[in-house]
Amino acid sequence: LDEKAMEIAALHVDQLTKPQGSLGKLEQLAIQLAGMTGELHPDLSTRAVMIFAADHGVCEEGVSAYPQDVTAQMVMNFLNGGAAINVLSRQNQAEIICVDIGIKSELQHTQLYTRKIRKGTRNLAKEPAMTREEAEKAVLTGIEIANEHAKRGIRMFATGEMGIGNTTASAALFSAFSGLDPVRTTGRGTGVDNGGVRRKQEVIRSAIHLHEPNPADVWDVLHKLGGLEIAGLTGLMLGAAANRCPVVIDGFISSVAAYVAIQLTPAVKPYLIASHLSAETGHRLLLEEMGLSPMLHLDMRLGEGTGAVLCFPLVDAACRLMKEMATFERAGVSREEAPR
Amino acid sequence: LDEKAMEIAALHVDQLTKPQGSLGKLEQLAIQLAGMTGELHPDLSTRAVMIFAADHGVCEEGVSAYPQDVTAQMVMNFLNGGAAINVLSRQNQAEIICVDIGIKSELQHTQLYTRKIRKGTRNLAKEPAMTREEAEKAVLTGIEIANEHAKRGIRMFATGEMGIGNTTASAALFSAFSGLDPVRTTGRGTGVDNGGVRRKQEVIRSAIHLHEPNPADVWDVLHKLGGLEIAGLTGLMLGAAANRCPVVIDGFISSVAAYVAIQLTPAVKPYLIASHLSAETGHRLLLEEMGLSPMLHLDMRLGEGTGAVLCFPLVDAACRLMKEMATFERAGVSREEAPR
Repeated sequence: LDEKAMEIAALHVDQLTKPQGSLGKLEQLAIQLAGMTGELHPDLSTRAVMIFAADHGVCEEGVSAYPQDVTAQMVMNFLNGGAAINVLSRQNQAEIICVDIGIKSELQHTQLYTRKIRKGTRNLAKEPAMTREEAEKAVLTGIEIANEHAKRGIRMFATGEMGIGNTTASAALFSAFSGLDPVRTTGRGTGVDNGGVRRKQEVIRSAIHLHEPNPADVWDVLHKLGGLEIAGLTGLMLGAAANRCPVVIDGFISSVAAYVAIQLTPAVKPYLIASHLSAETGHRLLLEEMGLSPMLHLDMRLGEGTGAVLCFPLVDAACRLMKEMATFERAGVSREEAPR
Repeated sequence: LDEKAMEIAALHVDQLTKPQGSLGKLEQLAIQLAGMTGELHPDLSTRAVMIFAADHGVCEEGVSAYPQDVTAQMVMNFLNGGAAINVLSRQNQAEIICVDIGIKSELQHTQLYTRKIRKGTRNLAKEPAMTREEAEKAVLTGIEIANEHAKRGIRMFATGEMGIGNTTASAALFSAFSGLDPVRTTGRGTGVDNGGVRRKQEVIRSAIHLHEPNPADVWDVLHKLGGLEIAGLTGLMLGAAANRCPVVIDGFISSVAAYVAIQLTPAVKPYLIASHLSAETGHRLLLEEMGLSPMLHLDMRLGEGTGAVLCFPLVDAACRLMKEMATFERAGVSREEAPR
């Protein structure tokens, strides 16, 4: 981070006509953005939500309320403009970049970025979800995609994903890294009932027992329990940070990818902006673990990047306040009196 | 509320390509907006933040970190476009309506709505802040202003206020109505230190002891401990609801005005949208008391309507999702499977 830019930003914030600190997280965000970009007034108007899509072999275990085909169907919905993320991206001036990093079926569309590592992960209940090489390749693909889009002018990223079964992989990763029992990391996903949640927990518990992932070895955990879209998002975050671009992270699955990214490279962390607190079990704990505090509390649990894109106006607000607010001096407003 | 419109909206929400309920508060908001307006797709693009400004006699007791003149100075800042609320209103396409309902000094500006009831309240530590008639007049003024602006086409309101000393009046009202000790309702306001907070608490405690406000008599509490801008905002909410306009309420002071409005007319409640959780002590409890759940957690404590206007994009999102998302049928996406 550019500490000089952060100092200048912090000094400027305290000249603005408002009680010190009264803009809360927006002030902190403005200072953080200066640190990331090296600019007091960064222009983040060219931005994109990066949706990584992949399938999950663990769907064989009946861990989702939706059939696996929905991954591909929803990707087509993204490409045709009909999903929630399309509506919110139009509203908040974000491009949608949709990456097939491991969908089971063959999809063709001029707008689809096809970077398939393999056709879905293997069933983590029975064997490692990926090989170590596949996991590495997925992370590298994410980095490459970040580079590519940063190079053509994207200045801020939001993370999104689509992958039926991916809350199971995400909870498995979180449990394996943290040692937390799956009861605390596993939720309803797209909406399984209590029996479904118990089944997910059991699948995760026995997979961790089977694979004995080593929490000190990030790649070991990631390849055994992860998902291709999760690994891709991890790479995206690393690549975005390397290009000094802020990354707004979405809900539980994106946050697991962020957790993995921080394990790989702690320096990525200040580039991450937590958007919303998902209704998915485990998200609150996971954000706390990373020391991130979400701005939106909407009880959403949709993924796609929807919560992240909803945060763009807050990022814009932080930038505009820095640029457009009057100072005490210019506005002729009295300062606070000495504390009494 | 229009229950037929709400039913239609609820049915529509469940046809959209997303797991049921996964848009959380945005779904509930979309249904609530249909109930308020009677329309499935209300057009809320013409909206205003209503800033009621007034002074507080209790400033004599040294309850604020800022000199009392700042009320008028900040109102001039609003009128000149330099305050945080100006920046956020430009960003979120909101008009600013600034009402002098009781500023101590004479202010002249073509954009200022002058509806002064009196030049600031009396010092509530020594005598009732207002007469009962003044409190009633302030509420009626708020209703009139809502009518006036609804009539000329405003379809959604945000509430804002400016008044050095008004967190003291607000905490006094909340304590008097709820019976909660001022320790639980009183915060730093614009930024007093620990000694200042204790002084505020003592002022409130002794004022309640002095005036013995009757919590069952709303007007008795309001005139003895309230503020002119708080009473004005109470009226604004009643008037907005009567015109079937949603009202996005800002932080602690606006929420106290909402509490008073609900006491006067419980039917106003479904027209109120809680925007953010303020850092001001007491706000969380107050919102819980009203059964309202804020969407933004930004640790802000600025007032002016800043938190409320930051919620406009979320209201817009709720409306656009209803209007623009594809249905399962249209997009060819499979529905959830029977629970297993």
